[in-house]
Amino acid sequence: MLKMSNLFVRTLREDPADAEVNSHKLLVRGGYVRRVAPGIYTWLPLGLKVLRKVENIVREEMDAAGAQEMLFPALLPREPYEATNRWEEYGPNLFRLKDRRENDYLLAPTHEEMFTVAVKDMYSSYKDLPVTLYQIQTKYRDEARPRAGIIRTREFIMKDAYSFDLEDEGLAASYENMRQAYQKVFARLGLPVAICSATSGAMGGSRSEEFLFPCAIGEDTFVRSPGGYAANTEAVTTPPVPEQDYSGVAEPTQVATPNAKTIEDLVGVLNEVAPREDRAWEAGDTLKNVVVVLTHPDGERELVVIGVPGDREVDLKRVEANVSPAEVELATPEDLAKHPELVAGYIGPRVIGPNSPARTVDEDGAVSGSVRYLLDPHVAKGSAWITGADEFEAHLVNMVYGRDFKADGMIEAAEVRAGDEAPDGSGPLSIERGIEVGHIFQLGRKYAKALDLKVLDQNGKAQVVTMGSYGIGVSRVMASLAELNCDEKGLVWPTHIAPAQVHVLATGKGDEVFEAAERIAAEIEAAGFEAIVDDRRKVSAGVKFADFELLGMPYGVVVGRGLKDGIVEVRDRREVTSTEVSVDEAVATVLDLLK
Amino acid sequence: MLKMSNLFVRTLREDPADAEVNSHKLLVRGGYVRRVAPGIYTWLPLGLKVLRKVENIVREEMDAAGAQEMLFPALLPREPYEATNRWEEYGPNLFRLKDRRENDYLLAPTHEEMFTVAVKDMYSSYKDLPVTLYQIQTKYRDEARPRAGIIRTREFIMKDAYSFDLEDEGLAASYENMRQAYQKVFARLGLPVAICSATSGAMGGSRSEEFLFPCAIGEDTFVRSPGGYAANTEAVTTPPVPEQDYSGVAEPTQVATPNAKTIEDLVGVLNEVAPREDRAWEAGDTLKNVVVVLTHPDGERELVVIGVPGDREVDLKRVEANVSPAEVELATPEDLAKHPELVAGYIGPRVIGPNSPARTVDEDGAVSGSVRYLLDPHVAKGSAWITGADEFEAHLVNMVYGRDFKADGMIEAAEVRAGDEAPDGSGPLSIERGIEVGHIFQLGRKYAKALDLKVLDQNGKAQVVTMGSYGIGVSRVMASLAELNCDEKGLVWPTHIAPAQVHVLATGKGDEVFEAAERIAAEIEAAGFEAIVDDRRKVSAGVKFADFELLGMPYGVVVGRGLKDGIVEVRDRREVTSTEVSVDEAVATVLDLLK
Repeated sequence: MLKMSNLFVRTLREDPADAEVNSHKLLVRGGYVRRVAPGIYTWLPLGLKVLRKVENIVREEMDAAGAQEMLFPALLPREPYEATNRWEEYGPNLFRLKDRRENDYLLAPTHEEMFTVAVKDMYSSYKDLPVTLYQIQTKYRDEARPRAGIIRTREFIMKDAYSFDLEDEGLAASYENMRQAYQKVFARLGLPVAICSATSGAMGGSRSEEFLFPCAIGEDTFVRSPGGYAANTEAVTTPPVPEQDYSGVAEPTQVATPNAKTIEDLVGVLNEVAPREDRAWEAGDTLKNVVVVLTHPDGERELVVIGVPGDREVDLKRVEANVSPAEVELATPEDLAKHPELVAGYIGPRVIGPNSPARTVDEDGAVSGSVRYLLDPHVAKGSAWITGADEFEAHLVNMVYGRDFKADGMIEAAEVRAGDEAPDGSGPLSIERGIEVGHIFQLGRKYAKALDLKVLDQNGKAQVVTMGSYGIGVSRVMASLAELNCDEKGLVWPTHIAPAQVHVLATGKGDEVFEAAERIAAEIEAAGFEAIVDDRRKVSAGVKFADFELLGMPYGVVVGRGLKDGIVEVRDRREVTSTEVSVDEAVATVLDLLK
Repeated sequence: MLKMSNLFVRTLREDPADAEVNSHKLLVRGGYVRRVAPGIYTWLPLGLKVLRKVENIVREEMDAAGAQEMLFPALLPREPYEATNRWEEYGPNLFRLKDRRENDYLLAPTHEEMFTVAVKDMYSSYKDLPVTLYQIQTKYRDEARPRAGIIRTREFIMKDAYSFDLEDEGLAASYENMRQAYQKVFARLGLPVAICSATSGAMGGSRSEEFLFPCAIGEDTFVRSPGGYAANTEAVTTPPVPEQDYSGVAEPTQVATPNAKTIEDLVGVLNEVAPREDRAWEAGDTLKNVVVVLTHPDGERELVVIGVPGDREVDLKRVEANVSPAEVELATPEDLAKHPELVAGYIGPRVIGPNSPARTVDEDGAVSGSVRYLLDPHVAKGSAWITGADEFEAHLVNMVYGRDFKADGMIEAAEVRAGDEAPDGSGPLSIERGIEVGHIFQLGRKYAKALDLKVLDQNGKAQVVTMGSYGIGVSRVMASLAELNCDEKGLVWPTHIAPAQVHVLATGKGDEVFEAAERIAAEIEAAGFEAIVDDRRKVSAGVKFADFELLGMPYGVVVGRGLKDGIVEVRDRREVTSTEVSVDEAVATVLDLLK
């Protein structure tokens, strides 16, 4: 039985200054977690109880799915991560350190390499496969921007599982097995999730899906269609735009466009100086060339120009997903200063990519002389555009892609908008936000190849193994549950996740009130449930009620003034209802509610 | 039910090349743990099961003792450790790293600072105390010499608890409470322990005891007396030696001592050139001056001379315990070269410590000009010695401590020997080796002072809190249990620690053998126990028997050729007995053994 009189908890009435989201505010105010450093938290007794319950549900479903639990170190040598190139690719997100002998180590953000090496050491035959292994372990990632309490931290608890199969079909089956286990985990947790197609990012591999808890404060944006398509915005592909017939399009002409600093201004100026016959010019008729910088894992900064229709912004996260492991940002004035051919606000295709007369290609196909030029797929072959003339206050009209300019390639870069068509034709997309609570990957043979994990197949031939990787952010799941289960007064835990199912409040003054409260709590525990009793002397009933509402046990029993008439109150924290029952019926009433 | 056909385990017939102790050999050969880097191990599925069982026994006894579990991060900011000076004191044993913003972090070897800060943040009154908090957590220590598999590792699992009291009496009671909880833990684990007085070392504080599992391969040496005294050798104190009357001792004289390179040689030479009247000279009549180097946490190397009777060696571990956090080693020829006054083999008191004419003391009492000179307490005030004359092949006779030379202080430095008297007069000491599995400390107010942890006392006055710190090496306990419970064939786990209680071997060929084995294992599990079934096809009975013996489940059921006659074998792994029973009685027989 937990007793408020000695439980290591102090509730706060004020939100912490750095907290913006409910789960963060309430978990700190309720004494569930405590910040130690940016993105580094301590689990206080109540928080650890909830965390362990979440962890156990994950563990039970992993075991039920046939996965075997083990536990790797968090402190790992550099070599296996060097072999897969992730030592470098992780960039500043990886915590690196040296030991006393100056050997390189890292704090693992994920363990593909280690599981691969372990299977390599222990298994040698197709008969040993398939196998799925997992751990529930503390992970490290040196996030640039830890946020939202325990939603995005630098030390966190993750369940990571890995499957090993000989054939692609086996991987597909192992993946499906884990996918179903994940659905069971989230169903048991009572956490709604959208399963979204995702990009694989730095993980490599082919198929990948994210489990997103739809939630306004989520930092991931995803889309859904009425027909059941779901994907995170990074993974959305633009439905093919048909090639256009440009036979009727005149040659490009340059027009002066004074005071056209924005796309809106530009359209206004064009409608005056070069009006269109059939209709007015629109933002979507312009081709906006945006200069970004890719920072490659080796630190190299590469300027790239991306062309998108003028009515859409460039979505840097979508770009980044396609150039990973490079990181992406907008070019700075300093970057632009090194490229005088790029006239800010008037950049056109003629000075960039394969269109530039300065472009050279050497014997090995290496390109230099002009920055790379990539187009968003909304730009159809044969389509005509208004675009910059590479001179201050001048634009070109009738620039046809494929006739007047070329690109180095295509890239999904334009923002996805509500109402865009789903790539599978399942209807218009709606845009939602969510918290990534799980992610599953078909890694394929990338890691096994890099680390030489082979087994002998049925014919005695050594074959590279194919792998899957499956993560659940255990601590983040707990934050998501808090986010889902709260109101303006505090947390409202689901019964199977709460630190205790029943909160017994002694709100009167006499010893008999405290004795009755402890007896009721003891009887609830004897029935196999957990109780917390607020047995603090000299603490007001108001404070105890406020703590009951803040801490969020699903049911409460209030033992107070009514006790002298043999009456106590049973409360449902979620419904905010209160029922008076006789003290002798209190336990039975609560147990009924718990059934 | 665990099945050998798909369990992630591979047993090895050969000992790993780097393994010297049984637990290391057998835990690796049995597929319980796997080395990743020096002192860094992975817990394979069987190992993790054992580890969790040990962990749960520790957790249950901590909870029963009223301690509250929480969980701190392993990655911690420098500041709190800076405040207590441990950032520096830990020297090269601390894993240090920088985050992406170049802030200093460490991987925590222990968490005194963090618990202190947490209590400071949350508690403010004497009414909140006492409280004891604990965690079971992954710890890091960059050991110079990781050894013996999981006995001394660089990443390990520890239970660390901390008590907080207002008064010294409260600390004594909290300490006693944890001490008793530890006795219960080790009793439940079936691990014999000697509770040894210990030095506090870098932890600071007053009383401290180590729980040592007596074991020949242990790296800690401790002593016991028939009267119940136990201490690790670092903590043994020399019984007071009475001051001696030197009125009859002549003035010191110098004698030539050619070819006296060892104490033995010296005694021989003296008995010839300067024989004693009453008896022959003995090694114990000589005073050996040993030059050591203290490396202080800031990197400074300080030469110190330690005087011990010539019949005893200097025990550097005992010295180190008394100069911690400095580290100690013998002086090198390079060190000595910087001090020409120290004539190797002939160092006497006259050129060192307060005896040196070069010694100066400044206004602040800071000493310079000669190296510090410390004496072991076996050197009694007034006792006369033969010691070096600071010249090649020359010694002094009749050098009286207190008359002819002084020292800068005393230090427990001489080796402890079997037969030495216990300091409490409880009889002669025997010397044993052991593995440190627990350590409890009365820290006192050192950490609370450094981090300003105060609470208001009964009179409303702010008082510094007094603390205790209590550790159990959970992973090391598991290794100790393996060390204790094994024979030449493999491990022999106690029932409540084994990954499974029963190992069912299908050693025949027909399907009916495998079906019967699985049925028996299922029935054992249905009865609330755990079973592992060796259901591997095409694996010989010999291999299965060898694995049964290596893996160490306490009981085995062998389903083999006898099955056609309705007979199976029940084996006790520890007794190496085997009983034939009818297949229908097999489960009942095993369950009887398990009761």
